[in-house]
Amino acid sequence: MLHTFRFLLLAGSLAVSAPALAQSGATKADPAMLAKIKDEGLNRSRVMETAFYLTDVSGPRLAGSDGLARANEWSRKQLADWGLTKANIEPWGTFGRGWNIDKSYLAMTAPYYHALIGAPKAWTPGTNGALKKRVMVVKAASEADLEKYKGQLRDKIVLLDVANPPTPSFEPDAKRYTAEELQKMADYQLPAPNAAPKPADPKADEQLKNRRAMFALRGKLLDMVQAEGAAAILSTRGGSDGTFFTSNGAPYAVDAKPVLPEIEMAPEDLLRLIRLSDAGLPVEVEMETRTRFQDKDLKGYNVVAEIAGTDRKLKNEVVMIGAHIDSWHAATGATDNAAGVAVMMEAMRLLKAAGVQPRRTIRIALWGEEEQGLFGSRNYVKNHFADPATMQLLPDHEKLAAYFNLDNGAGKIRGIYAQGNEAAAPIFADWLKPFADMGATTVTLRNTGGTDHLAFDAVGLPGFQFIQDPLDYGTRTHHTNMDTYERLPADDLKQAAVVVASFVYQAAMRDQKLPRKALPVAKTDNR
Amino acid sequence: MLHTFRFLLLAGSLAVSAPALAQSGATKADPAMLAKIKDEGLNRSRVMETAFYLTDVSGPRLAGSDGLARANEWSRKQLADWGLTKANIEPWGTFGRGWNIDKSYLAMTAPYYHALIGAPKAWTPGTNGALKKRVMVVKAASEADLEKYKGQLRDKIVLLDVANPPTPSFEPDAKRYTAEELQKMADYQLPAPNAAPKPADPKADEQLKNRRAMFALRGKLLDMVQAEGAAAILSTRGGSDGTFFTSNGAPYAVDAKPVLPEIEMAPEDLLRLIRLSDAGLPVEVEMETRTRFQDKDLKGYNVVAEIAGTDRKLKNEVVMIGAHIDSWHAATGATDNAAGVAVMMEAMRLLKAAGVQPRRTIRIALWGEEEQGLFGSRNYVKNHFADPATMQLLPDHEKLAAYFNLDNGAGKIRGIYAQGNEAAAPIFADWLKPFADMGATTVTLRNTGGTDHLAFDAVGLPGFQFIQDPLDYGTRTHHTNMDTYERLPADDLKQAAVVVASFVYQAAMRDQKLPRKALPVAKTDNR
Repeated sequence: MLHTFRFLLLAGSLAVSAPALAQSGATKADPAMLAKIKDEGLNRSRVMETAFYLTDVSGPRLAGSDGLARANEWSRKQLADWGLTKANIEPWGTFGRGWNIDKSYLAMTAPYYHALIGAPKAWTPGTNGALKKRVMVVKAASEADLEKYKGQLRDKIVLLDVANPPTPSFEPDAKRYTAEELQKMADYQLPAPNAAPKPADPKADEQLKNRRAMFALRGKLLDMVQAEGAAAILSTRGGSDGTFFTSNGAPYAVDAKPVLPEIEMAPEDLLRLIRLSDAGLPVEVEMETRTRFQDKDLKGYNVVAEIAGTDRKLKNEVVMIGAHIDSWHAATGATDNAAGVAVMMEAMRLLKAAGVQPRRTIRIALWGEEEQGLFGSRNYVKNHFADPATMQLLPDHEKLAAYFNLDNGAGKIRGIYAQGNEAAAPIFADWLKPFADMGATTVTLRNTGGTDHLAFDAVGLPGFQFIQDPLDYGTRTHHTNMDTYERLPADDLKQAAVVVASFVYQAAMRDQKLPRKALPVAKTDNR
Repeated sequence: MLHTFRFLLLAGSLAVSAPALAQSGATKADPAMLAKIKDEGLNRSRVMETAFYLTDVSGPRLAGSDGLARANEWSRKQLADWGLTKANIEPWGTFGRGWNIDKSYLAMTAPYYHALIGAPKAWTPGTNGALKKRVMVVKAASEADLEKYKGQLRDKIVLLDVANPPTPSFEPDAKRYTAEELQKMADYQLPAPNAAPKPADPKADEQLKNRRAMFALRGKLLDMVQAEGAAAILSTRGGSDGTFFTSNGAPYAVDAKPVLPEIEMAPEDLLRLIRLSDAGLPVEVEMETRTRFQDKDLKGYNVVAEIAGTDRKLKNEVVMIGAHIDSWHAATGATDNAAGVAVMMEAMRLLKAAGVQPRRTIRIALWGEEEQGLFGSRNYVKNHFADPATMQLLPDHEKLAAYFNLDNGAGKIRGIYAQGNEAAAPIFADWLKPFADMGATTVTLRNTGGTDHLAFDAVGLPGFQFIQDPLDYGTRTHHTNMDTYERLPADDLKQAAVVVASFVYQAAMRDQKLPRKALPVAKTDNR
């Protein structure tokens, strides 16, 4: 899941048609088939095995990395081995350079020895051998503050200040939605079609302005540090307890200008260096990082595979499910988003194991390069359905019955975001009925953002993301070095696979495609 | 604080006299002086600065390490600079070898690269250069299980199994005592003097037996791994999220038999290696550790300093406060126990700053080698007061008015453990009265264990430990690589210093020494 849109987006700004509530519609779904799916999914699940191959075996799956290539190939083969057809690794276009970490060592060597926890920022260069250098702290609240560092940074390892030092935590890392929270989601009402737009929030505008200013200042700071001849940069995006957040430190474009080696660190370790340096002690850091770019294959890819439809009239229509298979680089992307991929793959396996003969074709897509901007899904949609910039529709646009996405961590499914689609809501409510005893009950008209269903929604296709228990996604795993296999609760993933398989089956058997919202006007960005 | 006795010990097994409740006793304490202490402590505190020098500047303070020597020298000098007299680093006897980490690098290099979080176990040797070896997992539930590894381990890096894999956490790391919990402590009653001893708990006996068997099996496993010619061992004592627990991997005795290099790791990282290896993938680890023993000075030390008493009759009597200054090696021992040391040093500073002219002499002792078995305090007590093995009392035994200890993390003081001393309880209740609005209210007759007041209690001297809010001591910081400066809440340490200084002042001004329990019979171990 992308970073920027971790939280709920309200539907206020979207153009939404307001059809009369649709009937849930006749379906040819067979209750015995649903029972088989549930039995296979709960009693003979392979979702954790799939998750193991995606995480531990493939490794970190940054866009363009060896790990993503391994995961793509493994999942393509696994889907084919389960009997899916047209299992392919499909290029979506040009992404940029690949990048891998081949060594990462970092330690304080004066005033005493202490090994430091951190990892290179994505797409930053290595140190070209071992460095052992004095550090200098750079703190700047304004551009004027940068002046005082001029002439001071040559050959130094620069420490960037820490915005939010960790403190003892009185809140649990992990939580599940309460009945009250789910009810609040269910109660959400769309704004009236002609409602006045929400008044601007001066505080939010101010915050946005401040964030932009800080971002611009950081750019100038990095330029200054590089121009002054610093050797490397140590920084943090936060975290605590040995957990740190990761991001990219340079663009992946082939012609991106070179940057300095930069390490993202556990804040505790960086803060110790900063405090010692601020107190006037001579602090020395030793580091050796090797990173490896690859520019032989600049393409991005999605993994796709199908269960062919069997109904003469409907088999050219498609129900899609998907989840992004890429991740960040400092862990194995277990909750973001091996969990979603494992559940979606397991859902396909459950459908095959249950012997489903779907009326419509069912297609799975494992999206690449989501973390860099939903590139895999957006380009797939552009290549197959429509370009949101022009809203010129391709022939397949009318054939997509529905798209379901999973990318909010490893928590079980509690319901579904209807994404402002009032006609779809009662259908989903109907489909959720068999899962009340498994905790999945809630349909909300709310939008949710940050992930690949937006690519479909942006061109007027019915794309949905499930509501999932948050667990420790927002606090501990999302984009951190601790997004590991341990954070995947098997029972949650089993439940999710059963719910997804059931939804897909229902959507594939239903007489009608899922209702759609009104087509959006042409636009260039609907993230 | 020692590991074994983190939890409350009940008083049931101790011989306790049952005097009539004593009056809180006449004191010559001056309320204006108490107000000065509070004002200085809350408004001009230096406790965080002291904590910074103990943690970040000194570094890890393992018994016999360079870091402990730095901390001893710094604190001795600081106490002298604040105007304390007789500031000395006093040897208590022979401890054993010192040990330091000079390099620690660990990474998985196949099937792909991943830097690993860990640190050498204390007193283990280094790798003597870089190693790059295949791993082998060793799992044994019984001695018979060891057989199958014979002939398999030569030149391998051995992975020991993980007892409790981490999972998402639904409980907060940190907590404070609730009013109910404090009330329960306050309500605790000593068992009647002639009460029958508690019946043996078969379940507890069984657990103890199992723990001993597991410990014995681990010894045999380590012997086997070493005899088979393995290159090194990777293991974990638990933790989560990048936090790992630490311990010693070999004795500190000069004549200890050599062991293999052993690294304690973040469980997530070790579990990945184990899962990959269990699945049959070739896993390779690269490691380079350098550890350095020192056997030039085998002595152990305590730091002591005084504020001399001024009352002609009472100045030869002593009120003592203390906290251990040693720590484990993978972090800077912030909550265990730089917090206690910083508070006790600050209490002495507050007394000086307030211009206290105590009737009795006030002495601070910063204990060495607590983590290895309360050695600093026990030997101090043996050298100055009495040997618990013989209970032959030295002349100073009768001169000790009271000893107060602080070693339960960085939480503020909520009251005091009267350690079964019924006559002392009402005195403490009286002394706590001014601090009700600061959260310190509770006197419990309960014993608490695991730290240095036990050395005094063991020879019938009135030694006490304060009740402190637990914060994240038990879950996150105690003996981990994340026991860092960030875990010290300034307001908690300020409050504690004020309460301690006030208690010490009261004890130094009171007409009588604190009442004592009956002398214990001679014994060899009262941990």
